[in-house]
Amino acid sequence: MRIIKQGETELVELTASYNRVLAEDLRADYDVPGFDRSPYDGYALRSQDTSDQTPVFFEVVGHIGAGSVYESYLEAKQAVRIMTGAAIPRGADAVIMLEDVTSFAEHEKTFVSINKKLYHHQNISFQGEDVKKGNVLVEKGTVINPGIIALLATFGYAKVPVKKKPVIGVIATGSELLEVDQPLEPGKIRNSNAYMIISQLDRAGAIATYYGQLTDDVQESLTKITSVIDEVDYLITTGGVSVGDFDLLPEIYQHLEADVLFNKVAMRPGSVTTVAKMKDKLLFGLSGNPSACYVGFELFTKPVIDYFLEKHEIGNEKQVAILSEDFSKKNPFDRFIRGYYYLEDGKLYAGPAGKDKSNMVHSLAKVNCFIHLPGGDRGYKTGDRVNIHLLT
Amino acid sequence: MRIIKQGETELVELTASYNRVLAEDLRADYDVPGFDRSPYDGYALRSQDTSDQTPVFFEVVGHIGAGSVYESYLEAKQAVRIMTGAAIPRGADAVIMLEDVTSFAEHEKTFVSINKKLYHHQNISFQGEDVKKGNVLVEKGTVINPGIIALLATFGYAKVPVKKKPVIGVIATGSELLEVDQPLEPGKIRNSNAYMIISQLDRAGAIATYYGQLTDDVQESLTKITSVIDEVDYLITTGGVSVGDFDLLPEIYQHLEADVLFNKVAMRPGSVTTVAKMKDKLLFGLSGNPSACYVGFELFTKPVIDYFLEKHEIGNEKQVAILSEDFSKKNPFDRFIRGYYYLEDGKLYAGPAGKDKSNMVHSLAKVNCFIHLPGGDRGYKTGDRVNIHLLT
Repeated sequence: MRIIKQGETELVELTASYNRVLAEDLRADYDVPGFDRSPYDGYALRSQDTSDQTPVFFEVVGHIGAGSVYESYLEAKQAVRIMTGAAIPRGADAVIMLEDVTSFAEHEKTFVSINKKLYHHQNISFQGEDVKKGNVLVEKGTVINPGIIALLATFGYAKVPVKKKPVIGVIATGSELLEVDQPLEPGKIRNSNAYMIISQLDRAGAIATYYGQLTDDVQESLTKITSVIDEVDYLITTGGVSVGDFDLLPEIYQHLEADVLFNKVAMRPGSVTTVAKMKDKLLFGLSGNPSACYVGFELFTKPVIDYFLEKHEIGNEKQVAILSEDFSKKNPFDRFIRGYYYLEDGKLYAGPAGKDKSNMVHSLAKVNCFIHLPGGDRGYKTGDRVNIHLLT
Repeated sequence: MRIIKQGETELVELTASYNRVLAEDLRADYDVPGFDRSPYDGYALRSQDTSDQTPVFFEVVGHIGAGSVYESYLEAKQAVRIMTGAAIPRGADAVIMLEDVTSFAEHEKTFVSINKKLYHHQNISFQGEDVKKGNVLVEKGTVINPGIIALLATFGYAKVPVKKKPVIGVIATGSELLEVDQPLEPGKIRNSNAYMIISQLDRAGAIATYYGQLTDDVQESLTKITSVIDEVDYLITTGGVSVGDFDLLPEIYQHLEADVLFNKVAMRPGSVTTVAKMKDKLLFGLSGNPSACYVGFELFTKPVIDYFLEKHEIGNEKQVAILSEDFSKKNPFDRFIRGYYYLEDGKLYAGPAGKDKSNMVHSLAKVNCFIHLPGGDRGYKTGDRVNIHLLT
């Protein structure tokens, strides 16, 4: 975190701001309500004229909808018919609801009969009672939801200052990779990691730029990385980072004179995750194994994106859950199990999303959390409390 | 639900399919693994040649990376150096991990010395052990997440069949409404509902088409609605549905000969929510009050969108939570409180997102659930178990 940069601010249309990160505090540009107004359909009048002893007749001297204003000053025993949200006429100090009056006409005038004592200020929404002008309503770093959109509209944000999304390049490496539309060949598999990462980037609020897949050739990879590095804020490669003979990222980092921050993590899966720094860019070398790749992204790349976006919360939300299955085998390393959490009767449970062999791509489909099982000399049992990382 | 239509299927690029609803079952087009393969970097050999009594020397006769194949047949005391994911050579029945061998050269040949008994089929990922060809991996109606993207790529879905998003028109009505970029005027407020609804539509997976705001004029509204109704699957109007004199939707429904399905709901807020049917379209008449509008959308429009998309789950997720604040006032009507849920020590709590006066737009910002308080002759207390609707 100490070495990574934070992104810039851009203005987007209000309708394009949903789910973006607010880059400045959202402030009220006026009091809300902006004037004393009626919370109901009814009649505005002077409370001192009302009585619960005897019916009082009020002359209806005006009729205003929301958005219009009664220009005169309300006198004794006058009433103005008023709609929800309309401004209280000067002179009036209370509103009686529509259903509490009886109206009648006489000599071409309209009257209402009121049989109820109102108190001073009854049924009035006062200027500024919701929000005072200048108040901070939402702090920068917040992800914009529909309620915040309503606030932005209310306070005149036709354009919204949001954090620019980081642009993150994706390159898949591995001579065994086929493109998605290619037929299978012996010994080969279709490239799934790049597409998975692209959608993880989407979910994390970044822009993915896909540069295709490369064979395990140092020169080819080097040329590619060098040619694209200036177009992106960060670069993700998948594959090529384990200790196998054809794993070429270490050599590439050397050629690039990139500063390898770490290239091994005491965890499973994802132990070969590598992060290197090159000028102000980070290069994320994720595993070619789908679940290690998934975990590596969420644990190492996602927090960097959050930081770039100056979000309040860095990294995925963490919670405590009750384990719904045994993990009886002990493991010296911390494990991040592809998990599925659910609420049952108000309690949070988590279990494996499927068989957790690291090569089993199909259990990824149900994953909505990682279950973090610290390494040590014992396994874990159903009912144990464990930390989980939410992926939604 | 009985009268609403369901949408069609369209093919989109894999990279555009994230967060869309799968329109057909996702099936494996081959076994996974597609061939017997190595889960580790190591040496493929015949387990019958190994021993834990005495070191055995194997001649290294080949060296294959992921994606290539050893063409010969493996003979006694031969080993093939093999990378993770590479196909097991014919004749071999086990893989020993790289760290368990010592290699040496002699007479320009390479040998490995192995001091460990392997069993038949040790360290082999078998063809089809993850997934059998033809298996349904993900059912239609599922929202596509990054793990499902990985599966789609693995099984060659360069284009993905997804449900077409419904196109939903949005019209704001009310003479009191200013546009977002207009300065305030006495008695007027800026239109916030339309923008809020547009983002709620986005969150729900629909396409919003905004037709602007109208004054409270029947003829103008009628002309507008008639001119746009053929462009949309459903139409949402905000405002104009309460019992105030300037509320014009009832008259408009009559002119359109729309069949009003209901125009009052025994709930707070949102009691004036109206839904009418016109040919195969639904017209949603939501309240002009921001929180009633928000609730009306989530309770009535969102489930219709889910049904249109043929999602597995219709409507927002419901959970049981522990109330974190008193609601001591009884209310004859069911209430949907703008709430905020949170997990604490694995338990789900919910409280009001802010002051819940229905005209207070600013409490919408924190809303991530509705707390459903059934109407009746008592209030609710901190610690009571209540149903909540999740809005995320």
